[in-house]
Amino acid sequence: MALVVQKYGGSSVATPRHMRSVAERIVRSRKAGDDLVVVVSAPGDTTDDLIALARQVAEHPDEREMDVLLATGEQQSIALLAIAIKDLGFDAISFTGPQVGIITDEFHGKARIVKIGDEKIHRALKLGKIVIVAGFQGQTADEDITTLGRGGSDLTAVALAAALPADLCEFYKDVDGVFTANPRIVPDARKIEALSYEEMLEMASAGAQVLNARSVEFAKKNGVRIHVRSSLNDNPGTTIQEETAGMEDALITGVTYSKDECKLTVLGIRDKPGIAAAIFRPLAAAELNVDMIVQDVSEAGINNLSFTVAKGDLREARKVLEGVAKELNASGIQVDEGIAKVSVVGVGMRSHSGVAAQMFEALARADVNIGMISTSEIKISVVIPEADVETAVRALHAQFRLGASS
Amino acid sequence: MALVVQKYGGSSVATPRHMRSVAERIVRSRKAGDDLVVVVSAPGDTTDDLIALARQVAEHPDEREMDVLLATGEQQSIALLAIAIKDLGFDAISFTGPQVGIITDEFHGKARIVKIGDEKIHRALKLGKIVIVAGFQGQTADEDITTLGRGGSDLTAVALAAALPADLCEFYKDVDGVFTANPRIVPDARKIEALSYEEMLEMASAGAQVLNARSVEFAKKNGVRIHVRSSLNDNPGTTIQEETAGMEDALITGVTYSKDECKLTVLGIRDKPGIAAAIFRPLAAAELNVDMIVQDVSEAGINNLSFTVAKGDLREARKVLEGVAKELNASGIQVDEGIAKVSVVGVGMRSHSGVAAQMFEALARADVNIGMISTSEIKISVVIPEADVETAVRALHAQFRLGASS
Repeated sequence: MALVVQKYGGSSVATPRHMRSVAERIVRSRKAGDDLVVVVSAPGDTTDDLIALARQVAEHPDEREMDVLLATGEQQSIALLAIAIKDLGFDAISFTGPQVGIITDEFHGKARIVKIGDEKIHRALKLGKIVIVAGFQGQTADEDITTLGRGGSDLTAVALAAALPADLCEFYKDVDGVFTANPRIVPDARKIEALSYEEMLEMASAGAQVLNARSVEFAKKNGVRIHVRSSLNDNPGTTIQEETAGMEDALITGVTYSKDECKLTVLGIRDKPGIAAAIFRPLAAAELNVDMIVQDVSEAGINNLSFTVAKGDLREARKVLEGVAKELNASGIQVDEGIAKVSVVGVGMRSHSGVAAQMFEALARADVNIGMISTSEIKISVVIPEADVETAVRALHAQFRLGASS
Repeated sequence: MALVVQKYGGSSVATPRHMRSVAERIVRSRKAGDDLVVVVSAPGDTTDDLIALARQVAEHPDEREMDVLLATGEQQSIALLAIAIKDLGFDAISFTGPQVGIITDEFHGKARIVKIGDEKIHRALKLGKIVIVAGFQGQTADEDITTLGRGGSDLTAVALAAALPADLCEFYKDVDGVFTANPRIVPDARKIEALSYEEMLEMASAGAQVLNARSVEFAKKNGVRIHVRSSLNDNPGTTIQEETAGMEDALITGVTYSKDECKLTVLGIRDKPGIAAAIFRPLAAAELNVDMIVQDVSEAGINNLSFTVAKGDLREARKVLEGVAKELNASGIQVDEGIAKVSVVGVGMRSHSGVAAQMFEALARADVNIGMISTSEIKISVVIPEADVETAVRALHAQFRLGASS
């Protein structure tokens, strides 16, 4: 008998009908003999609706109170799901994040998990109950409600799986698993059977939306085995685990893209030590994540420095940057929102050279202009015009023969 | 500088616009120098909507989980209200019932407050914050979320006012105060300036919906001064406090009615000691409140026993009663849902005889048939056909010269 954490997203519990069908799936797993801890997101568009409501009350809603408001979405899900399971004759009990002892730091809206209590869960499991836990939320040591930000419910699931510990963490999605590229753009994209944490991490940070990078990182650190699968059928999905020998066969695992970023450039800064630190220290202090960074020398001793941030952080990043530009006597700031990032990911890259060259050639043949380049051990990312995303993804998917028919 | 508990109902916070206008009123009170603890209900129809949602998931939703679900309504209110107040430049902080240490027993859906923590509130008040507390909710000693049932938010307000203790507990309503009769039925009904707890208690249990009986009882026990007033204007409303000499001038304070009850009759039970206990003990065990009770002797030694319960409790009361009727060899059970209760209330009744006679005469002249009668020291209630309510209320209001023009 295994202890399994199952995570269901908002679209899986959007309506009472969805809720009942998730309950049926959970009961099937229970009948098969597993002990279950289920993590669930807010139903459908609830979180967005609550944000819109708060914006009608105040233009810039207080962050502590936003967390109090948003946490109600998942609380409704856990209650309704427990109701649905009990109605099927199985014992279930719901817990909010605070109730189950998910302790976070105090960064409202994007809090980090500090500690997880597992006592209540183990006690309920011992009584034969199916345990339903609200994703996305926790509380500070001082009992203030917090939320974990983007992908927060996934993180709750992985963190619970690590804390209990569970044998497996299953993510139920509206797709069959992780694909070599977005099937909506590349019709012959293939489901990937197994991925290493590193590959999933790079694919996630490169835009594969199936699982967010924070959660994969947490899973990697704690050795949590992950299974990403469909909530609509019983097909095996994609497993994510430690790298095994067989994985290295493939040069490239997948092609991903992201339209969620924009590019900021600080123009005309003098080239002297400490400039980059002067720019990125205040951004880090404001909890703004910077992705790609490129510095080019335009004239003798005068540099431009470009980097990308999430579009949602643009407003704040710009504010911080304006202060910095003044201090550095920079000549100005440029913002480009019309960009996208396309990446190829694969552990095979480590032992094969020439992937970058193949990538650039394929993009050139497809007439796609490259703006920025950044590489890691198992990933190459390029920034291109947003309008060229589909062309680029298709060209790269074909170039590296990732398709089902290849 | 006084410490005031203000309570706003669901209709006062139904929309973002309402929310902002409540925030403005709170800020006005704060500017006037008062320390404020604000108790708020769920917005508009939220609670009803959540109940309907749960019923779509399961016909008989689990009671523990219903409380987890329903508690989200007030949690949304406190967050949005705190957001609105902070947006006006005043410091506010929201607390859920569990956060503020409202400890209840374990009767989900109608829990009773056992204890209230005031530490967090006093700490926040000392920092100059306006404290917003979710009404209607608490948690058990084991940290299970509970709700307090009908009128629960009023009860939260009074209980907080008693625990802190506050100088005054203000209830903001969509009416100007407590009236001599429902102004929608009796156009010349008059606002009452001051009431004793006893009168308000009898009026509340007799159907005056402005404040529920549980809350008034709690206020009476703990000497909480209450002010019921309008959230739409600044007129003084009705104060409720210990009886004073001046109050005895009026014979009758008001006429109230309730259509929320129905009548159950157990037919053909043998007249022997212990029969009433055998009927009402299981009803009490099922937490069902019985209001009026009448026993009449139809034949030698064979009785019928009638009583009224809230319409919402009919289903369960009937179930309990069917078991009892079988045990007692009763000949059957009769249910009448088409009844209403009309009452006259006033402390003056104590020292004046003849009120009952005047009441019955007035009803007879108005051609209203009386089904059951019950009296207390300061109230006389009659059960009449539901269709005759308005006629009866108007007749009694005129009989006792309660109108503004009298």
